[in-house]
Amino acid sequence: MSMKKLLLLAVVVILSNYAYAQQALWGGQEIVSPEINPDNTVTFRYVAPKAIRVQVTGDFLPSEKVQTPMGEFDGPGFADLVEGENGLWEFTTPFSLTPELYSYSFIVDGLKTHDPNNVYQIRDVASVTNIFIMNDGRDGLYGVKDVPHGSVTRRWYDSPGLQCQRRITIYTPPGYENSNQSYPVFYLLHGSGGDEEAWIALGRASQILDNLIAQGKAKPMIVVMPNGHTQNPAAPGESSHGFFKPRMGGGPREAVASMEDTFGDILKFVESNYRVKKNKANRAVAGLSMGGMHSSRISAQYPNTFDYIGIFSAPPVVTTMRSGNQDPNAEKEFMKKLETQKKNGYKLYWIACGNTDFLYNGVIESMKKMDEINFPYVYRESSGGHTWDNWRIYLTEFAPMLFK
Amino acid sequence: MSMKKLLLLAVVVILSNYAYAQQALWGGQEIVSPEINPDNTVTFRYVAPKAIRVQVTGDFLPSEKVQTPMGEFDGPGFADLVEGENGLWEFTTPFSLTPELYSYSFIVDGLKTHDPNNVYQIRDVASVTNIFIMNDGRDGLYGVKDVPHGSVTRRWYDSPGLQCQRRITIYTPPGYENSNQSYPVFYLLHGSGGDEEAWIALGRASQILDNLIAQGKAKPMIVVMPNGHTQNPAAPGESSHGFFKPRMGGGPREAVASMEDTFGDILKFVESNYRVKKNKANRAVAGLSMGGMHSSRISAQYPNTFDYIGIFSAPPVVTTMRSGNQDPNAEKEFMKKLETQKKNGYKLYWIACGNTDFLYNGVIESMKKMDEINFPYVYRESSGGHTWDNWRIYLTEFAPMLFK
Repeated sequence: MSMKKLLLLAVVVILSNYAYAQQALWGGQEIVSPEINPDNTVTFRYVAPKAIRVQVTGDFLPSEKVQTPMGEFDGPGFADLVEGENGLWEFTTPFSLTPELYSYSFIVDGLKTHDPNNVYQIRDVASVTNIFIMNDGRDGLYGVKDVPHGSVTRRWYDSPGLQCQRRITIYTPPGYENSNQSYPVFYLLHGSGGDEEAWIALGRASQILDNLIAQGKAKPMIVVMPNGHTQNPAAPGESSHGFFKPRMGGGPREAVASMEDTFGDILKFVESNYRVKKNKANRAVAGLSMGGMHSSRISAQYPNTFDYIGIFSAPPVVTTMRSGNQDPNAEKEFMKKLETQKKNGYKLYWIACGNTDFLYNGVIESMKKMDEINFPYVYRESSGGHTWDNWRIYLTEFAPMLFK
Repeated sequence: MSMKKLLLLAVVVILSNYAYAQQALWGGQEIVSPEINPDNTVTFRYVAPKAIRVQVTGDFLPSEKVQTPMGEFDGPGFADLVEGENGLWEFTTPFSLTPELYSYSFIVDGLKTHDPNNVYQIRDVASVTNIFIMNDGRDGLYGVKDVPHGSVTRRWYDSPGLQCQRRITIYTPPGYENSNQSYPVFYLLHGSGGDEEAWIALGRASQILDNLIAQGKAKPMIVVMPNGHTQNPAAPGESSHGFFKPRMGGGPREAVASMEDTFGDILKFVESNYRVKKNKANRAVAGLSMGGMHSSRISAQYPNTFDYIGIFSAPPVVTTMRSGNQDPNAEKEFMKKLETQKKNGYKLYWIACGNTDFLYNGVIESMKKMDEINFPYVYRESSGGHTWDNWRIYLTEFAPMLFK
């Protein structure tokens, strides 16, 4: 074969054959799924000539009650795809979808499977699901827009308190690298199912911040996303513990100290490695679920450190979880810390919860206790439950209130 | 319900019920797959009580010939899982696996599906497959070890040549942030199927560099991983083009200029934003497949800029691809550039290819042309083909030769 012919073949092969072969071998298909239609309905497609039943399940469908040994649970709904020609199954939502990030899976003859035509997925604890975003999400804030972008860095900090190097995710706002300016810092904490990747992957934090900053709605700020599981140096797969199976709240070793007791390591790392404003008016801490409890405890334990505290979907007054027992003095001690925090003052203590959240009653009970000592807070009640769509919304609402 | 009981319930729910419900709803299962056995065989498991046939396909199995309209193709092999009790299918490799990163999928009654017990996946073009790493991979270099870690940053640079902001991945070595030292720079380019995420996700570049540097085998260096598709501002899903379906070499818009013509934008960005040694002895460029061709063209077009050039699995003398036609003068002009490059000198021109690579003959032909002008190079022939296992190996061999 001549050189020219060979190279031409190479070009063709690189551009098409390999892709073709990969599809043939790895099961990719030349169909579009999901397809977002002009009327904001969405069509799902799946090729399965031999299947008997193909369903889609996801949070874009009305939730359904599921019975578990622990009680009734609101879960994502289900819908049947209908088989057409050549084994192509299809389902179009009978309603328009509002702007949001949605996740879904197919169920083929009872087995969960991914959509082979959609490479976009996120992991939540040990579940990986496909995702799509309608119209750039809530208020158009979840999509990547043509605006200046911040940088997202995964790096490692030294935690003497936890006796190891730990992985941390840092968002620096657009322009950080090319200025001499100092910035405020927002510590943003994940829940029991998450890690230092959660707010970036599930929370769309970098897109939300980029877009809010571009619109002038949020101040340029550094966002610090540490790993809140003190028994883990890093997210699953990102440490020397290897590719272990993620589980709620779990990790490969015992924790030697709590998040609040070792938060000083993170504070010190950030304030000595970044150009930050080192005062209370320029520090915020917020988190979801377990991260909300961390935020209440951290802000109470460092009582003159944060002017902005956000508690998403978690009761701020929680004392039983920390030690694992029900020490009757624990709550009394924690309330004393809140008294000190109140005396020292702060600008915003923001509590947000969905009205169907399984922690809703705990949040209400917590606020009653805070009322007893006239502890000022702002309460934001949303619809919905203990889910990422609420946490993204809370972030879009909380970030604009910071450092003003 | 008392507050205490409620909180205790909340704890239990957070730690177990939600996970349980998620499993029930989303299909997670409490089995281990893949399981790496003490004798370095691997067991795959999949629960499918109603399935008729469950197979596993992956690059850990002996490759099989596949017929396609474009000719015969070496593809990953297949093996059958055997059904045991309660619909649990199982397959254990009849051989030990060598240290490597392997990818696989299940095929259930003819449909490709993911392993629901393994959250670790990588995307290659439009295919997403599960992965596992045997014994930290080749020479133990692919795993995350307890060694000092570099930082990996996704940020955006301005490309006047491409009239847009573009996303780029930068690895800075351990200690970069806490020193005043300047570092050498290694520009590491992906292939037609990749983007600025490819070398990090598929290439394990940050782990390989961390480990080589910790062992004293590679000099601390900055590794710059740009997006080589000039029609794309960023990887699929990471730009305002949204969640489009990735395809080989494709992008959502027309390219306004080539990689080599706009490489200066990247060079300028890196050298004005990082503490780098700005001379030829401290610059390297290498890439795989399309990125190898980019590396030959970039190093020829900036002929006194790089002392280290690496061409992985690509013919260095390729002139037809650039313009898309077979201009008879193109090759002559390129050979002239190589003459200049030779005259200016360099320390290492490293060409690596697998002996079953479909571009193998092109690589051999290219070297003959280079021999005609006595263009010095080092040739490394490996076994295997046009695959990521080879590209990871080439990186582990090339990086230690740099900046010495």
